[in-house]
Amino acid sequence: MFESAELGRTVSKSQFAKRSTPLREELLRLQSEYMAQARRQIILVLAGVDGGGKSESITLLNEWMDPRWLITNAYEPPNEVERRLPFFWRYWRDLPPRGRIGMFLSAWYSEPFLDRVHGRIDSRAYENHLERVMRFERALAEDGAVIVKLWMHLSHDAQERRLRNLEKDPLTEARVTERDWENWRAYDRFIEVAERTISRTHTGPAPWIIVEGADRPYRSLAVAEVVRDALKRALAPLPEHPEPEEPVKKKKGRKIKARKELAEDLTVLSSLDMDKKLDKKQYEQHLGVLQADLHHLHLRAKDKGIASVLVFEGPDSAGKGGAIRRICTALYPRNYQVYGVAKPTDEEAAQHYLWRFWRTVPRDGQIAIFDRSWYGRVLVERVEGFAGDNEWRRAYGEINDFEQQFTDHGIVLMKFWIHITKEEQLRRFKAREKTPHKRWKLTEEDWRNREKWDLYEHAVHDMVQYTSTPRARWTLVEGNDKRHARIEVLRGFCENLRQAIGDR
Amino acid sequence: MFESAELGRTVSKSQFAKRSTPLREELLRLQSEYMAQARRQIILVLAGVDGGGKSESITLLNEWMDPRWLITNAYEPPNEVERRLPFFWRYWRDLPPRGRIGMFLSAWYSEPFLDRVHGRIDSRAYENHLERVMRFERALAEDGAVIVKLWMHLSHDAQERRLRNLEKDPLTEARVTERDWENWRAYDRFIEVAERTISRTHTGPAPWIIVEGADRPYRSLAVAEVVRDALKRALAPLPEHPEPEEPVKKKKGRKIKARKELAEDLTVLSSLDMDKKLDKKQYEQHLGVLQADLHHLHLRAKDKGIASVLVFEGPDSAGKGGAIRRICTALYPRNYQVYGVAKPTDEEAAQHYLWRFWRTVPRDGQIAIFDRSWYGRVLVERVEGFAGDNEWRRAYGEINDFEQQFTDHGIVLMKFWIHITKEEQLRRFKAREKTPHKRWKLTEEDWRNREKWDLYEHAVHDMVQYTSTPRARWTLVEGNDKRHARIEVLRGFCENLRQAIGDR
Repeated sequence: MFESAELGRTVSKSQFAKRSTPLREELLRLQSEYMAQARRQIILVLAGVDGGGKSESITLLNEWMDPRWLITNAYEPPNEVERRLPFFWRYWRDLPPRGRIGMFLSAWYSEPFLDRVHGRIDSRAYENHLERVMRFERALAEDGAVIVKLWMHLSHDAQERRLRNLEKDPLTEARVTERDWENWRAYDRFIEVAERTISRTHTGPAPWIIVEGADRPYRSLAVAEVVRDALKRALAPLPEHPEPEEPVKKKKGRKIKARKELAEDLTVLSSLDMDKKLDKKQYEQHLGVLQADLHHLHLRAKDKGIASVLVFEGPDSAGKGGAIRRICTALYPRNYQVYGVAKPTDEEAAQHYLWRFWRTVPRDGQIAIFDRSWYGRVLVERVEGFAGDNEWRRAYGEINDFEQQFTDHGIVLMKFWIHITKEEQLRRFKAREKTPHKRWKLTEEDWRNREKWDLYEHAVHDMVQYTSTPRARWTLVEGNDKRHARIEVLRGFCENLRQAIGDR
Repeated sequence: MFESAELGRTVSKSQFAKRSTPLREELLRLQSEYMAQARRQIILVLAGVDGGGKSESITLLNEWMDPRWLITNAYEPPNEVERRLPFFWRYWRDLPPRGRIGMFLSAWYSEPFLDRVHGRIDSRAYENHLERVMRFERALAEDGAVIVKLWMHLSHDAQERRLRNLEKDPLTEARVTERDWENWRAYDRFIEVAERTISRTHTGPAPWIIVEGADRPYRSLAVAEVVRDALKRALAPLPEHPEPEEPVKKKKGRKIKARKELAEDLTVLSSLDMDKKLDKKQYEQHLGVLQADLHHLHLRAKDKGIASVLVFEGPDSAGKGGAIRRICTALYPRNYQVYGVAKPTDEEAAQHYLWRFWRTVPRDGQIAIFDRSWYGRVLVERVEGFAGDNEWRRAYGEINDFEQQFTDHGIVLMKFWIHITKEEQLRRFKAREKTPHKRWKLTEEDWRNREKWDLYEHAVHDMVQYTSTPRARWTLVEGNDKRHARIEVLRGFCENLRQAIGDR
């Protein structure tokens, strides 16, 4: 794989001078256009052989371009806070907003790569990691990000020469560490893992570009040209909500059944017994017992560092807020945070739609409760057409990936769909209109959403079907009777916490 | 001070029912109005005797109000990351945006308070802390924040009863810790420090309200009423750029001299020798030596965990970017970040104007470089009238406080004003117009700013005069010759780093 990067390419001083001036001008011009458009993100990964020029390349770009809109991200092994969060958390946090260029030094390739080189993880664990990397990059690329990954290469001999030269120069000697020599001694193994990594993660939307790193002028021009091309790609318009290539075909087995049900207007919601009720006395008994349970279970979960994420979805006035409050009352306020999902801020809008939710990942036994959530993508955004067809269709997979990172990390994830019938909603809307201190809760939009009841019901059906995964199942709750719904939610959360703690 | 909070006030069950319903309705109504306006921030501090009902009060507010727009902030002793940042960093980070309510459990009052109670810090250190607290709260209040601090009180006996009752109830027993009993045994000392704390930090814009905590219904109503009143205050319009009450009077000594100079159109900039020059050969010699110096000095600073903040201000085209690049070239890109200060994002605009800069505080030997900075408040915002008279006038003090937190924390802070003459600027503008790849750098605004040259010069004069403090001096750099300016900047930074490392 690396033969062509060991050819000993060089660029003479005069060639360099001749070629670099127009290139620098072009970079500056393209960068200012890219900034003004702010349509996509550019993500530049710099990885490769130690001494191959990763760091110098970033210095070069900072010198040739406007450094105020470049963001350098380098990573140490995760600190105390980072260790308590899913692997990709810090990379999501550091993504550049659209119009900026994020330069990532090895980043999500680094630790697992070296772990594999030095035999600290096995091939299977490493393949899993590469799989997660690909999904991460794909999610960003599908959102419009331009991702370019540079592999700065040196032959074994060239690396030795380079490290010795770095050590000789007082400006760079400190950069050569024992770790670099360790990696050099493991060169063959290093290259073997690199070949596997590159061949596995070299994808259309996130390609690797191998750059011969030995000759500085050659390397500088090569890197700058890569960035120039990335800028050009980033200036291309985004596809406008493209339609899927073909209408979805009927598939065998369960899917067909689902389609058939849909055709008859039956959805997963049709099977709910919406008459379920609980009288006041029973309710209060259950409530007391379950809240005490929850209280204790959560303290034990907290001791074990188990965090929870609770998602509440449901039609307007389904009683999400009431159910959430019954949970909160049982907890210490320092241990939970309720998030109402409203319009994204402009910082959030300048990122992938899941980015804002990465900001809220709970840690250390904390509980994050979402009153509406990332499922807006496949509910309101689908029904109202805010998301293009391709966007909401691929969101199921993106959301499953997103949630898997929570559950892989040991976070308890529960998703509640609190359902009410169309008639019950009407009754509640009318009651709200009559109660002065509840009237503000009812808006024009609520009435408009009601008109699209059937469309929403189909969207819910698809959502439940495609995003109920073994460790992140949907719990459908009959909500016509608020007491029943609240008890079901509390009971469900208690059961899941108990399982997570290990009280099976 | 606490006598009136030990009167044994109670509210009967029927009184509570009667009074709570309209109060809850009012809270909901006011909260939704407050959210819609998003004009101010509400900051609620809950402190007091253990068992006094801090935590229950937050639970109550979450139950009575819409919890999606309430943010609870509780703090453990600072973690690995937080310890490496100034004390107030995490409190700034957690401030609620306008339209939300931030509830802070003890927060900036907690650790130093207990340190004082248990004799771990002396009175002088504690008084210094209270002074910093007051400045922090004042800065927020002057920006329009409504700050209310609740002291939940219990008598010695009532606290003992309360802790015993909490221990008996399975829902709350876990909440009583050995630390609570320790504080109870130190009750007299606790109260003594509390009296000092409250009397010192009870200010007009950030008052303490002492609430008798023994009777739950009484306490609940009292807390809810405090929040209701805070919401009402938060709905009041902000003063529209109020004029200072009286014209600034002449003062004795140095100030008079400054005024006199101004009258004669002399400013701190007048004393600069704008003809200073460096020939190319000298420049290249100095540059090489200083960049190598900087490189090594920074590595040593990094080893010692010394972070740096560099501020660059100056007229358009003064050469700030060029000077910054000469610094960057000497550093590893992972060790610095250049920030260009543009229009605030909407998340930033929903906070105090200094909030966005708290996001960029460097840690662990990192360097943050600002191409324009928080000084915009007293430069462009003053000259263009974006900030009201009172706003920019009080900004000098706010900025000094802000910077003091950096220097107190051991961060090396340097501020460079790179100056050019009006004639030199014209020459550069014209040159830019002629160079295709530099033309984009020149905007209409640059020409407009030029017309206000004298106003800017006076603003710079005031800025340098009021914000050159012993550990955060302005360095005025003659910039007509770019080579001279770059060398001066490099030399200045090297000197400061050397001092900070201890090479005096």
